[in-house]
Amino acid sequence: MDILKEKKVAIIATHGFEESELTSPMNALKEKGATVHIISTEKGNIKSWKDGNWGKEIDVDMTTAEADQGDYDALVIPGGVINPDLLRRDEKAVNFVKAFFADGKPVSAICHGPQMLVEADVLKGRKITSFYSVRKDMENAGATWLDEEVVTDAGLVTSRTPADLDAFNAKMVEEILEGVHEEQTA
Amino acid sequence: MDILKEKKVAIIATHGFEESELTSPMNALKEKGATVHIISTEKGNIKSWKDGNWGKEIDVDMTTAEADQGDYDALVIPGGVINPDLLRRDEKAVNFVKAFFADGKPVSAICHGPQMLVEADVLKGRKITSFYSVRKDMENAGATWLDEEVVTDAGLVTSRTPADLDAFNAKMVEEILEGVHEEQTA
Repeated sequence: MDILKEKKVAIIATHGFEESELTSPMNALKEKGATVHIISTEKGNIKSWKDGNWGKEIDVDMTTAEADQGDYDALVIPGGVINPDLLRRDEKAVNFVKAFFADGKPVSAICHGPQMLVEADVLKGRKITSFYSVRKDMENAGATWLDEEVVTDAGLVTSRTPADLDAFNAKMVEEILEGVHEEQTA
Repeated sequence: MDILKEKKVAIIATHGFEESELTSPMNALKEKGATVHIISTEKGNIKSWKDGNWGKEIDVDMTTAEADQGDYDALVIPGGVINPDLLRRDEKAVNFVKAFFADGKPVSAICHGPQMLVEADVLKGRKITSFYSVRKDMENAGATWLDEEVVTDAGLVTSRTPADLDAFNAKMVEEILEGVHEEQTA
């Protein structure tokens, strides 16, 4: 079923992304016909994290300097402990994330991925979840944190761990199909 | 010079601690005559992080379940991206950190180490620094964040990166010599 064949989705990540949290949403999107681009801070490859160590590399399609948020219908932010810590250091990456919120476009973030939402200052008054180690950072950023496999709040989809990926992917697809959500703001 | 020979200092850390941020303060403390214990979430060894990969192992002296804050004069919290993320998941570790603040004892934290201070809810109104990627988490927790090699605020000593270790160690020793600081509270 090519229900997302008109949709172009950006996945933003860098070294240390939790492998399944990038590949599983990417495959779910591609299966539905979406065009998916991997956006990162630099050209080349980014190294995954799997089972407590560095894993395989995947190709970067475009850098945060080259990518234009206007070209995409939705954004996905995988987790991993190292990935968002590196990503939030890149002002272009943070502004890229923020621009999706400003335009009301669906954003899905899992595990430590929501740390990018803290950095982009877009969590005030939003309902979310995340990996539990960064719960306090989410609450301090103004979010209401829920211990659920997936939390959906007007275009914003969040989950806790790789074990939540099925629920995460399903809600992500649903929100992307719905398109722009007015309540999603920066 | 054994100026710290009466002092017992806890260093709390787990896997993924930035190697120099544990070994350098530890050696500085031992050179001054202090007794130093490595406290961690489990028995055995903890693996360092160095040059973007897992490094050497060091012995744990006591677990957070066994250690009593009352036995120590001061606390040191090294950084590393993975270390504080694992450490803050352990409620006993968080309570151990908080107890030093409750008793006004000197606490020194470097790089990502201050994430433990967010988790322990002790940053409201305090002046600190940290690695810059977690600056926003520090500010959201109520701290005033300064871009200086070392920030000292009534018993609380913080630094940004391994490059700041000389200044960090010097202030750490100074605050431990001074002893209890009334303004250091939980």
